[in-house]
Amino acid sequence: MMRHFSKSDILESDSFFRRNLINCLSGYKSLNLIGTKSSEGTSNLAPFSQVFHIGATPPLVGILFRPHTVKRDTLENILDTGSFSLNQVTPAFYKQAHWASARWDGSEFEKTGLEELYREGFYAPFVKSSPLQLGCSLVETQTLKVNETVLLIGSIEHIYVEEKGLRTDGSLDLNILEAVTVSGLDEYHVGKKLARLSYAKPDREVEEI
Amino acid sequence: MMRHFSKSDILESDSFFRRNLINCLSGYKSLNLIGTKSSEGTSNLAPFSQVFHIGATPPLVGILFRPHTVKRDTLENILDTGSFSLNQVTPAFYKQAHWASARWDGSEFEKTGLEELYREGFYAPFVKSSPLQLGCSLVETQTLKVNETVLLIGSIEHIYVEEKGLRTDGSLDLNILEAVTVSGLDEYHVGKKLARLSYAKPDREVEEI
Repeated sequence: MMRHFSKSDILESDSFFRRNLINCLSGYKSLNLIGTKSSEGTSNLAPFSQVFHIGATPPLVGILFRPHTVKRDTLENILDTGSFSLNQVTPAFYKQAHWASARWDGSEFEKTGLEELYREGFYAPFVKSSPLQLGCSLVETQTLKVNETVLLIGSIEHIYVEEKGLRTDGSLDLNILEAVTVSGLDEYHVGKKLARLSYAKPDREVEEI
Repeated sequence: MMRHFSKSDILESDSFFRRNLINCLSGYKSLNLIGTKSSEGTSNLAPFSQVFHIGATPPLVGILFRPHTVKRDTLENILDTGSFSLNQVTPAFYKQAHWASARWDGSEFEKTGLEELYREGFYAPFVKSSPLQLGCSLVETQTLKVNETVLLIGSIEHIYVEEKGLRTDGSLDLNILEAVTVSGLDEYHVGKKLARLSYAKPDREVEEI
């Protein structure tokens, strides 16, 4: 049985129901902890599900931030310092990652017990226990007219990845890295591989590779 | 053991290796088949991993398209007709979804065997076998200066979801809907739930709910 919601059904629904539903519609989302440090030296850590691939040459990543109408530490630290890290989350610390989204005073690293890692020549902290860490620098931001959402574009300056998850063709085995994915606002999953598929061509059906 | 790649390592690496690696860095990605129909009446279907939540009130979705420097049927059909559908993929037809990315002449529905579904008052076709189908209309597009990527924003006009996957709080059970997630360019997974977590507050550790 299919359930149907029109746009007016959606707009007239309870705001809690609507927020849960709409946040689930795109499907599984990536989960990254963004590590930053203010220009005064306070580190910050926050989970984001809106990080995506923008391009490979040069390597670029995009992040969507909700409207910059209230204090947003992560966005402000990146705008001030130009530096941030992206850190994949595993089942070993996804609860701490979620907890980092609370309104803390002071550093979320300290509060949640996640250990910060600094690397020479890079300003923002990494999450030490993450198996896939990216060091990024700010390229530009654009504000979307439609609802004041901020799209931030970053350049990938450094990749640190657990060797066991790196294949010889450059692809990563996210199952082996134990990357966590998120649906909606608060539900966490690991991935279970179906298959890799051959490059799609009209003259032959795709095959598992 | 952590492996390190600097930006210059990345730029100097083989282009196939680089494309595989960079496309994996954000983590698990959503998978949607976008259904469109040209103004001449030819239907089109293509898999996209760059669909994300933009806002709940009003309900908005974003899609990133690679630079519009070659013919891009999906983007052109949306710009011409203002109408498109987003359809979650399941293990039952993820191979056909992948195959739809080949360079076909004519409709990918016909070629891959996926059945199209039309609903009264909505121009674009849906994928009949999909358990979560969204009917969307074009709001606006923006071209990112940094690499000519096109960000398209759509308004969600209709939601059709298998009732078994809809919870009373509005959230969707993507495990029950059997939604597929993609990593890199060609690797498909299902999700396996760890837990839902309570709203994060500083004064108490998060709990499974």
